[in-house]
This record gives sequence, C-alpha cells and structure tokens, in this order.
Amino acid sequence: MKLKKRRLTLEEYVEGVKRGDRFVLSRAITLVESNLEADIQIAQGVLEQLLPFTGRAIRIGITGVPGVGKSTFIETFGQYLLQSGKKIAVLAIDPSSQKTKGSIMGDKTRMEALSNDPRAYIRPSSTGSTVGGVARKTREAMLLCEAAGFDTILIETVGVGQSEVAVKGMVDFFLLLMLAGAGDELQGIKKGIMEMADAIAITKADGKNLEKAKRAKVEYQNALHLFRRSASGWSPRVLTCSALEKTNLDKTWELICKYWEQMHEKGWIAQNRAQQNLYWMKETIQESLVNRFYTHPGIVTKLSEVEAKVASGHVPAYAAAKELLNIYTGNKE
Amino acid sequence: MKLKKRRLTLEEYVEGVKRGDRFVLSRAITLVESNLEADIQIAQGVLEQLLPFTGRAIRIGITGVPGVGKSTFIETFGQYLLQSGKKIAVLAIDPSSQKTKGSIMGDKTRMEALSNDPRAYIRPSSTGSTVGGVARKTREAMLLCEAAGFDTILIETVGVGQSEVAVKGMVDFFLLLMLAGAGDELQGIKKGIMEMADAIAITKADGKNLEKAKRAKVEYQNALHLFRRSASGWSPRVLTCSALEKTNLDKTWELICKYWEQMHEKGWIAQNRAQQNLYWMKETIQESLVNRFYTHPGIVTKLSEVEAKVASGHVPAYAAAKELLNIYTGNKE
Repeated sequence: MKLKKRRLTLEEYVEGVKRGDRFVLSRAITLVESNLEADIQIAQGVLEQLLPFTGRAIRIGITGVPGVGKSTFIETFGQYLLQSGKKIAVLAIDPSSQKTKGSIMGDKTRMEALSNDPRAYIRPSSTGSTVGGVARKTREAMLLCEAAGFDTILIETVGVGQSEVAVKGMVDFFLLLMLAGAGDELQGIKKGIMEMADAIAITKADGKNLEKAKRAKVEYQNALHLFRRSASGWSPRVLTCSALEKTNLDKTWELICKYWEQMHEKGWIAQNRAQQNLYWMKETIQESLVNRFYTHPGIVTKLSEVEAKVASGHVPAYAAAKELLNIYTGNKE
Repeated sequence: MKLKKRRLTLEEYVEGVKRGDRFVLSRAITLVESNLEADIQIAQGVLEQLLPFTGRAIRIGITGVPGVGKSTFIETFGQYLLQSGKKIAVLAIDPSSQKTKGSIMGDKTRMEALSNDPRAYIRPSSTGSTVGGVARKTREAMLLCEAAGFDTILIETVGVGQSEVAVKGMVDFFLLLMLAGAGDELQGIKKGIMEMADAIAITKADGKNLEKAKRAKVEYQNALHLFRRSASGWSPRVLTCSALEKTNLDKTWELICKYWEQMHEKGWIAQNRAQQNLYWMKETIQESLVNRFYTHPGIVTKLSEVEAKVASGHVPAYAAAKELLNIYTGNKE
C-alpha cells in the first residue's frame, strides 16, 4: 500500500511548476487528471494562474498505427531535439489505455534514453471513459508542461480516428508516420487522418527498405496532391526517415521549423490556437450537457427500451428523441 | 398573396402518402419541414403511422463539387432508372440553400425530363439554420417518399464536408462524382469525403476528355487502395461515365446492385440502417440540448464576453465552460 502523500497547496503547485520542478509537475498533471470534484477545483485554479506562462512551446502531434515505430521515432527524434538544445515533453492520448493499461508508452523503457535525460519529460496517457475526456486532460497536461518551461511538446497517439481529431485540436503541427510497402490494408490509416497531416514521414527507410520507402514517398505525395489545401494554406510534405540510421531527423525538424515560421508570419498559429481554445470550451460544454442527459435517472431507466425500438425501425428517431427529452426536462420545466 | 390551403388531417396525410398521391406527398414533406410546434406534432404522428411502409427503397447519396455535373448526371441516370422500371425520388441536402435560395436543384428545369415524368418525384433542399436540422428534414422526406412507393431514392448534396456526413448517415450507398484533370485544387474534395464513397464516378468521360478520365480512374483507384477498407468490407470502385453520351450509366447501376446484393446478404444493410436510426436519435438529442443551452438568456448575455477571453488565452477553456454551465444550471438546480 502506498503512503498517502501530503496534499500540495494551490500556491505550491503553481510555484513548483513555474520553477520547472518535475516532481511538482507530475503531481500537477495527476491533479488535472483527477475526476474528484475537490481536485478539479484546485486544478482549474492552478491552470488559471499558470495560463500566462503557457503557449510558448511548439506543439507537435505524432500519429501512426501500431508497428509503424512511433516510440522508436520519438526516442530518436527526441534525442536529436535535445542535442539541438530543446527541452521536450512527450505526452500521449490513447483512449484504449484504460483497458490495455498503457498500450502507448506504458513502458517507459521503450524510450529509455529519453526518460533518463533531465531535459526531457515523459508522461503516459491519462485514462478516462471518453476520448474527449482523455484529450482534455492531455491538453491541460500540455499547458502545465509549457508553464514548466518545456519548449517542444510531442503528443503521441494511435492512428485510429477519434483521438487524432482531438490531437489536431491541440497542436500546431501534425506529423503522420507511415510504413512503406506494408500492404495497404495493414496501414489501417483512415483518409481523414491523412487529411489532417501537415507532413507524412515514411519510417524505417533504411537498408533493404530504402527503395520501397522512396517509392512510397512519391505515391503518398501524389495522393496528397489529389486533395485540396488545408485552411492554413500549407501544402503537406512527405519525407522518409530512419530511426535506426538516424537519417532525415534534421530534415523533419527543418520542415517543422519552416512550417512554424511561415504560419507564424501569416498569423495562422495564433488564429488556430484561438479557434482551438474555443473548440475546447464548446466541447467541454457539449460533453457536460450530453453526460448530464445520459446519467439522468429517468433516461437511464428508459434508454435501452427506446433504443431497441429505434434500431428495429418501429419508432422514428425524432419521436424517440422527443420522448427522452420530455422525460429529461419534465422534472425541470 | 397565396390562398390559404385547407389543413389536411393526420389521416388524410397518411392515406394520401400511402396511395402515392404526389400532391399529398408534397404537403407532407412541407409539414415535416415546418418548425411550427403544431406542425411538428402532426408530422411526427404521420411519420409514426407510415414507418411500417418505409425502408423498402435503395437509398443512394450523390455528391460532388459544383461544376462536376451533378444535375446532368442525375437527370440522365434518373431517366435510365425509369427505363429500367424504377420509381425514383430525388431529394437534396444543401445547407447553403437558405442563402442562395436553392443553389441545388432550385431550378427544376435543370432536370426537365425527370421533373415531367410521373414516375419521378423531385424535391429541392429544405432550409434551416443547421446542417443537422436540414439533414433531419431530408431524412424524414425520404421516409415519406418510401411510404409513397418510390423504390430508389437519390439524395444530392454539395461536396463540402458537413452535409456529406449527414447524407452518409441516411443512405445505403454513397456515390462521389469527380472531374478528370480539372486541376487538383479545383476539385475541392476533402479526403474525408472520398473515404465515405462506395464508388467514384468520373463524369464527362467523353470526346477529348475520355483519355484524361481513364487516367484519372487509375489514379483515384490507386489512391483508394492506400487506405483501409470500410466497416462494410466493401472496396470502393472507380468508374468513368458520360451523361452526354449516356455511357456507363448501366455499369454504375450494376455496381450499385452488386453492392446491394452483397451487403444485404451479409446483413450489413440492416445493421447499417439500425445504426443510422440510433445516430439520428442521438443527433436530435444532442442538437436539442446544445440549442437549449445557447438560447438560454443567461448564456446569450454572457457568451461573447467569455468567448473573447478564451480566444485570447486569458481564461482556460475548461474554466470558461464551467462558468457558462453554472449560469445555465444555476437557475434550475
């Protein structure tokens, strides 16, 4: 049994994070991850006081299906960034981690060099019942890391859809890792995810794989050209890289820097972040409203019966919705 | 000034639609499009009574950017279907139509032959303030058309994103129209829309365009192969067609029939429709909850002030959401 740790005060959290105390940072992230009402209150106070010290990092989302080499890429890319003088924090969004107990980065030894370096901070995925909830906590952990002085945030996620939308909603740059010639179906990447990417990096471009990777680069570049530009005006690029041979890590970083400069200059970074802030406010409101609805005792009692009638086509969707909404508001109006 | 039409009774609506009376069908669709509380009540009664007579049509969504030739395709494809003995209804979802007063099919003369044929029924897009609202009305119009005996429903929409998701949520088969060599950016199709397509038809594949169209077919087929299969297990196909020379309309229909048979056999059609029904119920609930929130007088008063603070990064998104939620529930709890 763990010893009960002394609770920190709001000031201790704020001051500890501001001076970059990793122990306090970890406790503060645990605090924002908590679902206890008392913790939520302090967490929001901490965030509010630290907000002026956030926003100065470049926020990079990294995705790709299991097997593409995300951990290896982040381990190697992260070391490259440390050598360039960056202070990096690695966070994760993995909605499945509550079941598998950490399928992403659960085992820090997968990023051994990074986790042993004092200039890097690694934090596995938070857990929660909804992608939105997990993502919100990761976003707040990111803000805490920024306030603690980390200037480059890497947010890792699995390439399965919903969590990518959430990551896209909190980063400046979105990097998609792909494998060359793994067979199309194996990649399992949804087109919608490719659309979000600011760059695609084809991993494991080394040895016998190199030629395949180069061909894949052309293929993906052509595929990207079939679609319209993103709202930022940036045309996504494709490059190859190897964590094993440490090739093109510099080119990847140069590309990100080029994006950052161009997008900063035209005001897109600021504009995008403002939109992201509003997005999270609206998401939180909607999640709360919907959650309140589906946990209402009257709805809990009635829902599965109504759902069965709707699924079988015996009751129109709209009529069923109205019936449930009447139960919900009946007590209040 | 129009003469005020006599109100029909619920029974008159139900019986009229059931016997395929086009005049009553049009009035019934107008009824489900109405936002008046009294109309909504009758409309839901009509839908509930007609529900047992719905579901027997094949539901086809058709999308593509303006200029791709949607109207011409539907006019020609529709005539082909009529000649094959089908009874077709053409509906539209165009969230922009409230501003442009019918950018899709507003002018029925664009589908002159179809609109003059008694075996076809054409109805322009409903109007409304949200895509969800417009889409819900189109979905209910579709159910009315099915009850009136139409066995093939074509739902047209513009290829801009949100409305496609709504259409995908109400059809069995989704056809994306594309132009060959119009320049990539001109196409303006989002990758997410391509992902939803069960088939892509490259239009205007005639005369000097034919070779370009054939090359585009290969290109798009390759692009589609890069991504994973859809949940149905169906691999999307690409074909070329010409409304001018009336080529490959038969192949398009054969493809749809092949899809229909395969998907029926494995139970996907029924499973997909059950999911769609539940989706619409949940959408309606969420839309109602969110709408109720943002029209609450306390929120209306406070919202823009809070939004400004969040967008500028002075207040955390979560704290702002909580502040608004407290205003909203404060009066009630």
